[in-house]
Amino acid sequence: MNETFDVLLGHRSIRRYTDEPVPDEVVRAAVEAGRWASTSSLVQAYCAILVRDPDTLAQLSRIAGDQSKVRRAGAFLVICADTRRHRLAAREAGTPYETRLEGFLVAAIDAALFAQNTCVAFESLGYGICYVGGLRNDLPAVDRVLEIPDGIYPLFGLCVGRPAEAPEARPRLPLDAVLFDERYPSDEAMLELLAAHDEEVAAIRERQGRTPGTWSARVAVQLSRPTRTDLAAYYTAKGADLG
Amino acid sequence: MNETFDVLLGHRSIRRYTDEPVPDEVVRAAVEAGRWASTSSLVQAYCAILVRDPDTLAQLSRIAGDQSKVRRAGAFLVICADTRRHRLAAREAGTPYETRLEGFLVAAIDAALFAQNTCVAFESLGYGICYVGGLRNDLPAVDRVLEIPDGIYPLFGLCVGRPAEAPEARPRLPLDAVLFDERYPSDEAMLELLAAHDEEVAAIRERQGRTPGTWSARVAVQLSRPTRTDLAAYYTAKGADLG
Repeated sequence: MNETFDVLLGHRSIRRYTDEPVPDEVVRAAVEAGRWASTSSLVQAYCAILVRDPDTLAQLSRIAGDQSKVRRAGAFLVICADTRRHRLAAREAGTPYETRLEGFLVAAIDAALFAQNTCVAFESLGYGICYVGGLRNDLPAVDRVLEIPDGIYPLFGLCVGRPAEAPEARPRLPLDAVLFDERYPSDEAMLELLAAHDEEVAAIRERQGRTPGTWSARVAVQLSRPTRTDLAAYYTAKGADLG
Repeated sequence: MNETFDVLLGHRSIRRYTDEPVPDEVVRAAVEAGRWASTSSLVQAYCAILVRDPDTLAQLSRIAGDQSKVRRAGAFLVICADTRRHRLAAREAGTPYETRLEGFLVAAIDAALFAQNTCVAFESLGYGICYVGGLRNDLPAVDRVLEIPDGIYPLFGLCVGRPAEAPEARPRLPLDAVLFDERYPSDEAMLELLAAHDEEVAAIRERQGRTPGTWSARVAVQLSRPTRTDLAAYYTAKGADLG
């Protein structure tokens, strides 16, 4: 369709990188592009902390569940929802700062839009990226390592590097299971779509010589027990009002 | 830098559109690109409802605070965090479905990444987009209008259309106020960055003949009283556990 579509449709999460570093000017260019993402009423409730120090990376890697890619990435960014600047502005203006779940949600969405634009920018330059939700395993530890103050809510990490692998695309749900005309479909219609997708995934896994599995089975196992159960308490302690 | 950077850096929220419709095949192509965004452990916790019915658009427009652009856009998408498919998969597998704030946050972030890729795709084809957070003014009403079932959490709308305006870029915070090396800066350093940005914004507004104003003053006013205070109760009633 065009070069941008090539980038978007060509996305594969990249978990192995060459030794080539990601220069500061590339990081700055990509984050500059991220900065032009849409933002709710211009609040720009996000920030990125670039981590290159090997000791720090080793600690973050352990927090993320011993993910060696965090240490080995050419660059690692910690993406945070940032309300601290807003609080500073309110303090200077002598006005109260009060938000509820709306404020937290806007900040999380703002940060995600910013991060995704940043990723597309990196990918357009031939770099590979991988989101690292594993930082949420222990956000108080992330705060200790990076000395992240109140009002800043780390959400996830981003590994960036020159790809040292060319993985196959991981199949996505069919378009008709995520884009609907006028109304959300019935459960029966959705179950049919999921069954067709499960068959497709099973066939792909068989062809790849992997253990049998489907999207539905995987999701059911994954969501059968709550994880990271301290998140609400953590974000609240950092200043978020989730009520 | 490259065509994709041109698209990303060229973003302006577009609020006025020509009468040219946005064909279904363009919507499908853009959402297809959205679908290839990163997603947490492949859960793909998002969906988009394409609304073209004029009566429905008129109702959504009213909910969003009488935003005529919702009625006048060439296409309007309601972007939702979608956990209903996961619940169906769990029900079929006979496993419990249990998530806490982690599940809600992952779904909101997944939906935002998906939406942002979709927007970049539209923009690469010469369409303009505008996020519409105003739907959160009254999400129970959005549910009634679109009959959105439990487990689906509408987050925002997206207007899409051929631009009938070419607005100036709205200045963003300086890169050094959002990208940090190793550590978050001190409040003093941040206040200096904000002061410099406020001066820049004030000068731009003066040049444009607009009422005086700065980013800090605007944000302080905006966040001085809680808004959309029923969001947590609403999402909880729809099935989210925010605890």
